[in-house]
Amino acid sequence: METSTQPTPGPKSPTRVVVVGGGFAGLNVAKGLAGCSGVEVVLLDRRNHHLFQPLLYQVAMAGLSPAEIATPIRSIFRRARNVQVLMAEVRGVLPREHRVVTDAGEIPYDFLVLACGAEHSYFGHDEWERFAPGLKTLEQATEIRRRVLTAFERAEVEGSQGAAPSPWLTFAIVGGGPTGVELAGTLGEIARFTLSRDFRHIDPSAARVILIEAGPRLLPAFHEELGAQARRDLESLGVQVWTGCMVRAIDGESLVLARSGGSDEERLPAKSVIWAAGVKPSPLNAALHTALDIPLDRQGRVIVGPDLTLPGFDDVFLLGDQAACRETPDGPALPGLAPVAMQQGRWAARAIRDRLRGRKIEPFRYIDKGQMATIGRKRAVVEFGRLRFSGLLAWWLWLVIHIYYLIGFKNRFFVIWEWAYSYLTYHRGARLITKRDWQSGP
Amino acid sequence: METSTQPTPGPKSPTRVVVVGGGFAGLNVAKGLAGCSGVEVVLLDRRNHHLFQPLLYQVAMAGLSPAEIATPIRSIFRRARNVQVLMAEVRGVLPREHRVVTDAGEIPYDFLVLACGAEHSYFGHDEWERFAPGLKTLEQATEIRRRVLTAFERAEVEGSQGAAPSPWLTFAIVGGGPTGVELAGTLGEIARFTLSRDFRHIDPSAARVILIEAGPRLLPAFHEELGAQARRDLESLGVQVWTGCMVRAIDGESLVLARSGGSDEERLPAKSVIWAAGVKPSPLNAALHTALDIPLDRQGRVIVGPDLTLPGFDDVFLLGDQAACRETPDGPALPGLAPVAMQQGRWAARAIRDRLRGRKIEPFRYIDKGQMATIGRKRAVVEFGRLRFSGLLAWWLWLVIHIYYLIGFKNRFFVIWEWAYSYLTYHRGARLITKRDWQSGP
Repeated sequence: METSTQPTPGPKSPTRVVVVGGGFAGLNVAKGLAGCSGVEVVLLDRRNHHLFQPLLYQVAMAGLSPAEIATPIRSIFRRARNVQVLMAEVRGVLPREHRVVTDAGEIPYDFLVLACGAEHSYFGHDEWERFAPGLKTLEQATEIRRRVLTAFERAEVEGSQGAAPSPWLTFAIVGGGPTGVELAGTLGEIARFTLSRDFRHIDPSAARVILIEAGPRLLPAFHEELGAQARRDLESLGVQVWTGCMVRAIDGESLVLARSGGSDEERLPAKSVIWAAGVKPSPLNAALHTALDIPLDRQGRVIVGPDLTLPGFDDVFLLGDQAACRETPDGPALPGLAPVAMQQGRWAARAIRDRLRGRKIEPFRYIDKGQMATIGRKRAVVEFGRLRFSGLLAWWLWLVIHIYYLIGFKNRFFVIWEWAYSYLTYHRGARLITKRDWQSGP
Repeated sequence: METSTQPTPGPKSPTRVVVVGGGFAGLNVAKGLAGCSGVEVVLLDRRNHHLFQPLLYQVAMAGLSPAEIATPIRSIFRRARNVQVLMAEVRGVLPREHRVVTDAGEIPYDFLVLACGAEHSYFGHDEWERFAPGLKTLEQATEIRRRVLTAFERAEVEGSQGAAPSPWLTFAIVGGGPTGVELAGTLGEIARFTLSRDFRHIDPSAARVILIEAGPRLLPAFHEELGAQARRDLESLGVQVWTGCMVRAIDGESLVLARSGGSDEERLPAKSVIWAAGVKPSPLNAALHTALDIPLDRQGRVIVGPDLTLPGFDDVFLLGDQAACRETPDGPALPGLAPVAMQQGRWAARAIRDRLRGRKIEPFRYIDKGQMATIGRKRAVVEFGRLRFSGLLAWWLWLVIHIYYLIGFKNRFFVIWEWAYSYLTYHRGARLITKRDWQSGP
């Protein structure tokens, strides 16, 4: 009989799901499969922690400590015996052979979920990174904190020697999206209130905070009305908003700027520059494109349909910022927001479970959770479908939602406390300048 | 008349006191002179924060965040209008010309207080620092945290590939003083309890924590009984205590050890080494010795009498770990403890005030506040004069005193909360591995 060549059905080895990336998408896949019998999850990340990105600007602005918005991935899954967490970096994917290549060797999979997120894009000018850090990781956040606080200290030293107001006190933030707006608002407040009594030779409130946006308005993903409101709110904190302004060069001492469409260039002396202008997905995408001719969109994201799989490989899911998910073939890609990543993660976990049980899978549908951005310590703009509002109520909503989604009771408690404390006193809890190098010596 | 050559007594310019170092000693000088009319204080530090050193081991062991034990010096003195804080590094002292040389120019003084503290000494083997960080700064603490947590992650990756137990899981701590004892106890607990359920391929409680001390016993500055008690407490946490054991070499993969007095060498494979074995004072001392023939003791500290001044210069005070203060000419030098530095700082401020008012100055007398060391999360040893005790009561006393001396209500609150939380759950709040380099890329 022909069946004799088939292996005897013995104790079935579990289905292995390899998840790459412990961000909002990857974490939700692993959570959705935790405790699922017959499934073994291997969650890979090159870092040991899940980072709550929406509050990262607070670390850069010395309001929160890194540990308050980051949680060891391992400890999130300590009770999920079918989830193993490995700190490893993925070097490539071999979808035809069902294996991922990592710096810790090759790992075979039955299902693969790629959710590697995005990093900053300097639009071909990677040499600007040195002078204008982006804000995607804890290291970058503490580096920005170091630079901003050091700038005030340097200006104070120059002031003690009787020097004129200094380019140390001009802060340029490039990019008028939510991150740029949040950084600019907080920095405006720090200069005006937090530091106002701390210096003897400079007036921190005379610091210039300039928010530079190439497009015609702030918060382009929001309704125009909210962009205008954000601008007014920022200006009331002393922030200068320069829209229609392109960056041509950054050299650590100044920026070269040009009006959109114009050819005249202007030099702005500014020692501190923060980059919040653009993102690009993981380099894994380019490798997939080269090896397998996978189509990418203009930003380099893999174009996926509502089944969220890699074209041609229905056992490979692509989630979050790494993918351009179109719910209809000609529709726009979903935005790079945390709710999109979370919903995709939960959906992918359910899709894998359903697939294993032979159930039909419904296509992914994004339930719009709206979007929000905060400006300083008591204002925000919120857009939820056609509902739009701003001001203190928006700020409270922003606060409640962000605390709710923070992982861990202890973090929530600490963040609320830090916020209440700095709300009442304008103090900021983490005003530390730490050096880049740990070794002793000058 | 001869008096005509003297300047007319106009509005007197304030007496300038330059304080170098924002540690326990320097901070207390500035506090003692804050608001003192006719006195202007310039407090110099190369860092922007005062660090509560006694809890630094908790940052290295992921129990506390850097911001919880460090406070911006500037914000401590925000209300003291006669205190200015400058972030600058001192390069030299010209006592005959009454000036300090800094990287921000030369600063003239009427009184100078040098309280630059100490850094680690590798006894002529500075090349060991790379492999065995010391614990004096926040950067070193986060570097130790990174190494210790990374070691467990690496061992887990190796374990997932079926490798045998790994030298990643051997942790060597060199130096059996309070810092070494505190690090070893906490690391023993982390391995046994905190991480016990977090890994799938290794058993963290099988990690070896080895405390290496060249002398015959732990805590040589304490009574013998307490050294023996600390050893028993450490051993009950699984720590191996190797006394009479000298380090001959460290290369990142292993240590070469020798019994005191013996010639046989032993190689201990250990990737993670922490150095807690010796300190040396600021290099400023050697410069003073060369330029002015100032006498130093064997450890390189300036020998000062009970007036705490630089021999030959009664307007230059030397405090804290930078000085060897002998209350009697042949007596022993005071130990390098926080209470000594604090009392000296307060005394120096009073001495300056008294000097300006023409009052007689009493010599400095150290009021013994005893010493203590903690072992894990509920044991400590305490010595107060002839009173000695250990165990839970000692631990509570240790806790109360450390919280009391922490600067800032908010820090106190946070530290109590972190402690209560980790006491109840064994969680540790700051288990973050952050890279040394902030720039993106692999």
